[in-house]
Amino acid sequence: MIVIGERINTSRKAINEAMERRDKKFFQDEAAKQEAAGASYIDVNCGSRLKSEYDDFLWLLEVVQEVISIPISLDSPSAQVLEAGLKNVDKRPLINSVTLEKERFEEIGPIVEGDKADIVALCMDNDGIPNNTPRIVENAVLLVEKLEKLGLKREGIFLDPLIQPLSVDTENANMALASISTIMTRLSGVHTTCGLSNVSYGLPERFLVNRTFMVLAMANGLDSAIIDPLDRKMMTNIITAETLLGKDEYCGEFIGAMREGKLEP
Amino acid sequence: MIVIGERINTSRKAINEAMERRDKKFFQDEAAKQEAAGASYIDVNCGSRLKSEYDDFLWLLEVVQEVISIPISLDSPSAQVLEAGLKNVDKRPLINSVTLEKERFEEIGPIVEGDKADIVALCMDNDGIPNNTPRIVENAVLLVEKLEKLGLKREGIFLDPLIQPLSVDTENANMALASISTIMTRLSGVHTTCGLSNVSYGLPERFLVNRTFMVLAMANGLDSAIIDPLDRKMMTNIITAETLLGKDEYCGEFIGAMREGKLEP
Repeated sequence: MIVIGERINTSRKAINEAMERRDKKFFQDEAAKQEAAGASYIDVNCGSRLKSEYDDFLWLLEVVQEVISIPISLDSPSAQVLEAGLKNVDKRPLINSVTLEKERFEEIGPIVEGDKADIVALCMDNDGIPNNTPRIVENAVLLVEKLEKLGLKREGIFLDPLIQPLSVDTENANMALASISTIMTRLSGVHTTCGLSNVSYGLPERFLVNRTFMVLAMANGLDSAIIDPLDRKMMTNIITAETLLGKDEYCGEFIGAMREGKLEP
Repeated sequence: MIVIGERINTSRKAINEAMERRDKKFFQDEAAKQEAAGASYIDVNCGSRLKSEYDDFLWLLEVVQEVISIPISLDSPSAQVLEAGLKNVDKRPLINSVTLEKERFEEIGPIVEGDKADIVALCMDNDGIPNNTPRIVENAVLLVEKLEKLGLKREGIFLDPLIQPLSVDTENANMALASISTIMTRLSGVHTTCGLSNVSYGLPERFLVNRTFMVLAMANGLDSAIIDPLDRKMMTNIITAETLLGKDEYCGEFIGAMREGKLEP
């Protein structure tokens, strides 16, 4: 499982406050803890800071990269911010994100052209988020075609089916699960990824719903997720499901996680 | 999810001791608690009591049925015991179990002929438990053919793919998951069921492994399981996964379980 650590996002109150005071130690702790907990990328997002995003973002990149050995997920609504970020990372990053929307694709495409970064591609188009599996998959196919034309390899494309809340329609999780399964079968080589928390919007016990959805999604082939790696029960579910799905030789990761006290059943 | 409550089994020490002293109240509590926790069947198994099984079994059936409103899962290695059990139940029971083994099928077949009971059918044959998905599915197809010839309907057949320990081969869970998925697709109408604990044999944190396997299996279509309904975390996973899989209109079961304090995240 490729875990994209989501904690450094200024839409969260504590993160925004630390940003206000440019608290270097706070962000370095946040980044290091996520890596130690098993993150593969550290997502950096200060898109909520409309007036200062550009400067804040570059400051965060410098601070965070001092303490981690994993790459950054450059996360911004602004193409300019992403382009500047790409010039200020020391490892091949993930760009978060492109869509099929005409304007967004035309902005982001040139930034990654020539296979300059891995990329999260959201399966939405000019009409928004599709409300059925065939159209989500169709968008995934189009995104891969267009990104391959720009020189990207499938191994660097992370397709996000954009899960909708179960409280709005009880078929929404099934729609995402079928999309993941179909994408992984039809577009051999790509990754699928997902922000999970939307699925539980409007329900009680949201963490439980998110964690259980993760296991269902992994059963359907999901191999990446944008989550909080410090959510120990979530990471426990991921480690256990990977072992059950045959991705853990001799169950070594599972037994190691147990010995290190990482499992929280 | 059709939950077969597994607690009344004399291979468990406390159960055997209660059997020794014919502790009626103990067994009635065990049965009532399982029903209250969401069981659809109460399994009764005293196969470990070789010398007295027949009498013990009939006593247990009488005692248990006094307090429950759900049917019994008649569970015995002995065809005579199952046949006697079938004559002493007040609701259509589940017979646990038949296999493709020649002798076993010839013993059990006549007992259910004419659609006298639902039945658990283990996907094993004269050569034992198959070690690959195609042969497990082939056994499932043969079992359904033979049981349909005896007048049983698919809706009364519970196919068990017989999961093997992950610690023996890390592909064992995948083999069971693929078998469940294929059986549910190819043999439309049947149920799949599973005893879960075997999957975690030889691993630490067995309950965690079993509970996580349950969610993976439900993602592949499993609609019944032989479990301990008093394992609150297991039941929480089942309730949450059913809701995510679109089997809970308006998420009502999930929200109700939360309000009744049944969820243990």
